Amino acid sequence: MLRTHTCGELRLAHVNQTVTLAGWVQRTRDKGSLLWIDLRDRYGITQLFLEEGKSDPQLIAAARSLGREYVIRVTGKVSERISKNDKLATGEIEVKVEQLTVLNAAKTPPFTIEDETDGGDDLRMKYRYLDLRRTPVRESLQLRHKMAQQTRAYLDSLNFIEVETPVLIKSTPEGARDFVVPSRIHHGEFYALPQSPQTFKQLLMVSGFDRYYQIVKCFRDEDLRADRQPEFTQIDCEMAFITQEDVLSTFEGLIRHLFKSVKGIDLTSVPRMSYADAMTHYGSDKPDTRFDMKFVELNTVAKGKGFGVFDNAELVVGICASGCAEYTRKQLDELTEFVKRPQVGAKGLVYVQYKSDGTFKSSVDKFYGPDDLKQWADALHAKPGDLILILSGEKNATRKQLSELRLLMGERLGLRDKTKFSALWVLDFPLLEWSEETNRWHAMHHPFTSPKPEDMALLDSDPGAVRANAYDMVLNGTEIGGGSIRIHDRATQQLMFSKLGFSDEEARKQFGFLMDAFEFGAPPHGGIAFGFDRLCSLFGGAESIRDFIAFPKNNAGRDVMIDTPSTISEEQLKELGIQVRD
Amino acid sequence: MLRTHTCGELRLAHVNQTVTLAGWVQRTRDKGSLLWIDLRDRYGITQLFLEEGKSDPQLIAAARSLGREYVIRVTGKVSERISKNDKLATGEIEVKVEQLTVLNAAKTPPFTIEDETDGGDDLRMKYRYLDLRRTPVRESLQLRHKMAQQTRAYLDSLNFIEVETPVLIKSTPEGARDFVVPSRIHHGEFYALPQSPQTFKQLLMVSGFDRYYQIVKCFRDEDLRADRQPEFTQIDCEMAFITQEDVLSTFEGLIRHLFKSVKGIDLTSVPRMSYADAMTHYGSDKPDTRFDMKFVELNTVAKGKGFGVFDNAELVVGICASGCAEYTRKQLDELTEFVKRPQVGAKGLVYVQYKSDGTFKSSVDKFYGPDDLKQWADALHAKPGDLILILSGEKNATRKQLSELRLLMGERLGLRDKTKFSALWVLDFPLLEWSEETNRWHAMHHPFTSPKPEDMALLDSDPGAVRANAYDMVLNGTEIGGGSIRIHDRATQQLMFSKLGFSDEEARKQFGFLMDAFEFGAPPHGGIAFGFDRLCSLFGGAESIRDFIAFPKNNAGRDVMIDTPSTISEEQLKELGIQVRD
Repeated sequence: MLRTHTCGELRLAHVNQTVTLAGWVQRTRDKGSLLWIDLRDRYGITQLFLEEGKSDPQLIAAARSLGREYVIRVTGKVSERISKNDKLATGEIEVKVEQLTVLNAAKTPPFTIEDETDGGDDLRMKYRYLDLRRTPVRESLQLRHKMAQQTRAYLDSLNFIEVETPVLIKSTPEGARDFVVPSRIHHGEFYALPQSPQTFKQLLMVSGFDRYYQIVKCFRDEDLRADRQPEFTQIDCEMAFITQEDVLSTFEGLIRHLFKSVKGIDLTSVPRMSYADAMTHYGSDKPDTRFDMKFVELNTVAKGKGFGVFDNAELVVGICASGCAEYTRKQLDELTEFVKRPQVGAKGLVYVQYKSDGTFKSSVDKFYGPDDLKQWADALHAKPGDLILILSGEKNATRKQLSELRLLMGERLGLRDKTKFSALWVLDFPLLEWSEETNRWHAMHHPFTSPKPEDMALLDSDPGAVRANAYDMVLNGTEIGGGSIRIHDRATQQLMFSKLGFSDEEARKQFGFLMDAFEFGAPPHGGIAFGFDRLCSLFGGAESIRDFIAFPKNNAGRDVMIDTPSTISEEQLKELGIQVRD
Repeated sequence: MLRTHTCGELRLAHVNQTVTLAGWVQRTRDKGSLLWIDLRDRYGITQLFLEEGKSDPQLIAAARSLGREYVIRVTGKVSERISKNDKLATGEIEVKVEQLTVLNAAKTPPFTIEDETDGGDDLRMKYRYLDLRRTPVRESLQLRHKMAQQTRAYLDSLNFIEVETPVLIKSTPEGARDFVVPSRIHHGEFYALPQSPQTFKQLLMVSGFDRYYQIVKCFRDEDLRADRQPEFTQIDCEMAFITQEDVLSTFEGLIRHLFKSVKGIDLTSVPRMSYADAMTHYGSDKPDTRFDMKFVELNTVAKGKGFGVFDNAELVVGICASGCAEYTRKQLDELTEFVKRPQVGAKGLVYVQYKSDGTFKSSVDKFYGPDDLKQWADALHAKPGDLILILSGEKNATRKQLSELRLLMGERLGLRDKTKFSALWVLDFPLLEWSEETNRWHAMHHPFTSPKPEDMALLDSDPGAVRANAYDMVLNGTEIGGGSIRIHDRATQQLMFSKLGFSDEEARKQFGFLMDAFEFGAPPHGGIAFGFDRLCSLFGGAESIRDFIAFPKNNAGRDVMIDTPSTISEEQLKELGIQVRD
């Protein structure tokens, strides 16, 4: 080793030892007769020290010539500092330099390598290898490592086997777009990269593997939204001979283990809510339950008073923002603007200020008197000082709009603290959802999800009402995992494909191997997959998943550091049997 | 859970408990009044039992209707067996069936689900999910899981961080062919799948990550030879601020830890041999050191006696096959045929039988008398009863040929026992090798490998003589891992690219980001990568890596179970901006 100790290791106990350190020059401070160098590595920072008159003049000259981010190796004696730095683990000592070797010089970095940097996103991505030197980014990736370790420790302890499934698989038309890989040996044929190892993990259950997991890269060729990556990582799991209850308790156990072992937090047992209730009370299938602010339906108290907007609405629904009665006109206008943004899509907002003196002021005073408004306030359990916010219209659309407003108010009221964690199981998702675009039913989860047996009868008469044995885990308003109990018999799987508009021929071509497998003794099974990048970013209290991925792509799916995607040679294209269209 | 216990769990201590098991019907034995069912799951086999007159007749009828591989669930009481089976962990008990549910019926499998199966390779691959039910295959994958666990445990304990590197990267012309992925968003541009995370792990060192590892999928679009897979898994590692010695001792530690923890074997410290010595003594850079049978050069004793073949040869070299003097003419002819096969390529074989009575019989008695042959025997340390086998010709070719013969003789003499393990470091590989095909120097390891400083002067005058700081670990004659100390400064890296025939422009386009990174403070670093599939198969004592991969491709790169690669739709091709050439 080029060092005897790391830069995070030396303490008072090492005083008078001669040590060798290696690392990067974080900064130098030159006081004329005294010269200090902060030497950094992954483990910490150690202060180096030279003194005019006592240190070799050549050594001092060499030290003076060091720039930021130079890589050096120093040997010297550990001594106690006169003025200690209690913010640094090594803050009680410094190393008096006796030898100094420059292992590599460094040009001035294009942005400062500090916790807060002056580099913009593009620059940071182009020089990602420098960005990764910054402590917050390094710590994010260290957190990720710990998350993976603890995930494995938990699942290993429960007899799950990690099995690697293939990356070069087969393209399937269901779901998002596949990335494909042309085969050179079989011209005109393509592999596809997996959107998930779904069918393989089910086959492992058919094989009797019983409990499978994998921390695995998956791929989706989507039009990239902010904070989506074309390649992402899942904690992918499957179990056999289980009921839904077993899956829920096993993976509630995982999330509690992660909170305990990684963050020292005792998470309470994870509450459960049906999809229907989540939509009714929060207008979302991934409610942020760090705060309450539940929806209250106001149809009975708000309709029939001559206010056409409400009278003609399928749903009138409100929330109570505690302590916001004194919002100014400007603030109230902002809220109205917010709900009218195309991304939210409401036509307008009705508010009621329940003043601290017990009086009401609303945007619909023309139609409703104080007694009416008191009724609303009572329904919403509002107190004097609160602000009531009401939307109306078609049921589903209105709920989604109010959900956005609820999240905004939660944010404004400081109720979405990134250091607080609230997990939730959402259960009983619909099996199917109608797509206006393709004019047919789609699987809400995926085509392998089993319908609830008691709802099977509705499959012909009212497909949208059929509930699935499907569940999501939600953390702080973000879906972190989802899964289902799978179909495990050929007849049901075939029925499902036909409901989804597959011809028998298509179903056989795409998923024949799975339906065949179901005929050779498939056990009841089910599983779940967690989005690992997102889970890590939530644990790290960050908005973006970017810094929890060592080398992420930008929003155009491009790695600007290595400059990919890029063109390839005509020769290579020819060998692959493909050509680029004009 | 659909069971209270697994099929590998019940013992005498459970007698009289009522239990519920679930699993597959391995076989039934019907003795008329008595009926036994062997129920199998991942954990073992438990015997179930029904008795005419005592068990419910409907239950007996149901049990009689079960076929092989039916998935069932049974509840019953554990009882002590009258005739115990000490080959089975559960062999002291059986379960008297009280309830039986068929969870799923099974068609008759296309091959028997037994340790030795009647299924051929093609059938086993098509129904891989059934093949995976066989105990040896399941145990191979369980071994792989344990290898991964223990690899992580060892590296975690040494402060290595597991970092995921991207799968969608950039195509580079050096080395094997890349698989490429057309970008839908950027028409005419492509990602490539990584042949290894080489540049990324080096960038992580530049970032200060200090110790990195990853168990990672890599991809090579090669013409497939037997037992090569287009996707394969590496244990990929890199360290900074180290010398070659540190890498060798760290990863010798890994391999010894794996042997100890996975197989309970105390591996001796791993011996070291230079590439030059390996070629001289074994004719191979991956000698099988489970047995000795070293090469002995016979130029001085064999030349100048009028035997033209030897007189004109650059090298005359032999091995001594202990105790084989009595090989028949037929056996000797077989050896001659073996070395004359095109894959080996020798022109002929000279043998000397050192008979147990001290006399010699050779295929060159015309040219050499007993005294000559005695000289050869002495040089080879042959004893009466041994067989001397000699090849001659151009030095390098002859060594390779004799290496093949040595391995064959080792095999015949039972010296290549799969339960014995001999590891070896091969050091000081040449930096460059000449390619007749492209008429230029290629990097023997890869272009990032550093030359030995003392050999730098030869880079212009005698490039083939320059040694690299490169090392391979060899186990039982198979290369299981290889690595090097890397170049970490721009000037040397640029020099290397130019020696390899890159123009400055090409070098900048392909690897500009890495050379840039070397200018911002790159520490000295080096690493290694192990072939995980092969390592697992060697630990498992198997010839093939196939059964250590859950869903392997066949030799044509095809997964016959899911039928991939396969065609994709014209619509999909259009979206991707590519078309198939006629």
